[in-house]
Amino acid sequence: MEKGLLFVVSAPAGCGKDTILGELFKKTDKAGYAVSATTRAPREGEIDGVHYHFLTRDDFSEKIKRGEVLEYTEYCGNFYGTLKKSVDDLILSGKDAVLKIEVEGAMNIKKMFPEACLVFILPPSLEILEKRLRGRGTETEEKIRERTLQAKNELAFAKNYDYLVVNDDLSEAVEDVLSVFRAEKLRRERRAGLIERISGEKT
Amino acid sequence: MEKGLLFVVSAPAGCGKDTILGELFKKTDKAGYAVSATTRAPREGEIDGVHYHFLTRDDFSEKIKRGEVLEYTEYCGNFYGTLKKSVDDLILSGKDAVLKIEVEGAMNIKKMFPEACLVFILPPSLEILEKRLRGRGTETEEKIRERTLQAKNELAFAKNYDYLVVNDDLSEAVEDVLSVFRAEKLRRERRAGLIERISGEKT
Repeated sequence: MEKGLLFVVSAPAGCGKDTILGELFKKTDKAGYAVSATTRAPREGEIDGVHYHFLTRDDFSEKIKRGEVLEYTEYCGNFYGTLKKSVDDLILSGKDAVLKIEVEGAMNIKKMFPEACLVFILPPSLEILEKRLRGRGTETEEKIRERTLQAKNELAFAKNYDYLVVNDDLSEAVEDVLSVFRAEKLRRERRAGLIERISGEKT
Repeated sequence: MEKGLLFVVSAPAGCGKDTILGELFKKTDKAGYAVSATTRAPREGEIDGVHYHFLTRDDFSEKIKRGEVLEYTEYCGNFYGTLKKSVDDLILSGKDAVLKIEVEGAMNIKKMFPEACLVFILPPSLEILEKRLRGRGTETEEKIRERTLQAKNELAFAKNYDYLVVNDDLSEAVEDVLSVFRAEKLRRERRAGLIERISGEKT
């Protein structure tokens, strides 16, 4: 079976990253999220290894030290993150692993997982992003300006990504990301040994 | 308007290149063949600039000398080839230009047109290719062996291509090539200035 790839998807808040990935997962069963790890207690109905990998704080810290955690963050006194093993398990099963992650985390993942493919989703323009954030009617004017400024800072990282997808029209953006997931696997440097196998020089 | 790209598609005989591209053009109007140039006389109904660019032998030779011909071949005493201008016209109109070309021609095009994207279509295996050629029932056993050997030689060039598409299932191969055409345009190095434009640093 052919291995999957790790795709890292980043976008400033308000660019529709979650919506795009939600639509994408409706259209393909060849990609999925890796199961996250956390040190918080399981809630009712949550199953270890399905909803999260539940770890003790010591276990989690130990895994960080051993370089087994691709990215993590601390929130309300608990660790949340992605184990390298969760990604490996998914891609060894032949599926693509998708990580939604902010820009600095993405740069770290590229270091630990150089074969990762990085996709950045951009708004058509910062003005349109600002309008979209304002249109939600849920945030203060100050918060909107702060978010637009943060988006601008995040955009400066986009030059380190492999693909740039503009979310102007949602269904076009979904097709764009699907095409990236499909085409990236066909790139020659991803297909080591294929030519030799077909030529019968290697089995 | 965004410029199109030049895609060069190569495959050994019997790999279904023409069928794949025929199906692909039914599914997208964003790509087309560049109009070829020839020194042969127009046949009834053939329109200059539509079916071919009809050139005199002197004109054609002059264009070769000036480096204006991406690839050409001589057949029955006439030149047939692709003018760089035909490709430029197509991609400036926003369409992708597709060139079907054998492996050595493709290597030359990459030199003259470094931004070209090269796609190689492979059979699932040389044995399957041989079976397919035999299944046609139109060729002698000697010719079939000769073609299989030639395919093997051509496969050695595949390592210089950007994408490798295996034609095992036709509709999957068509989707693969469509994805390549779509995703390649989203690659960061193809989108110079996009981030700056969106950030409002450049208009």
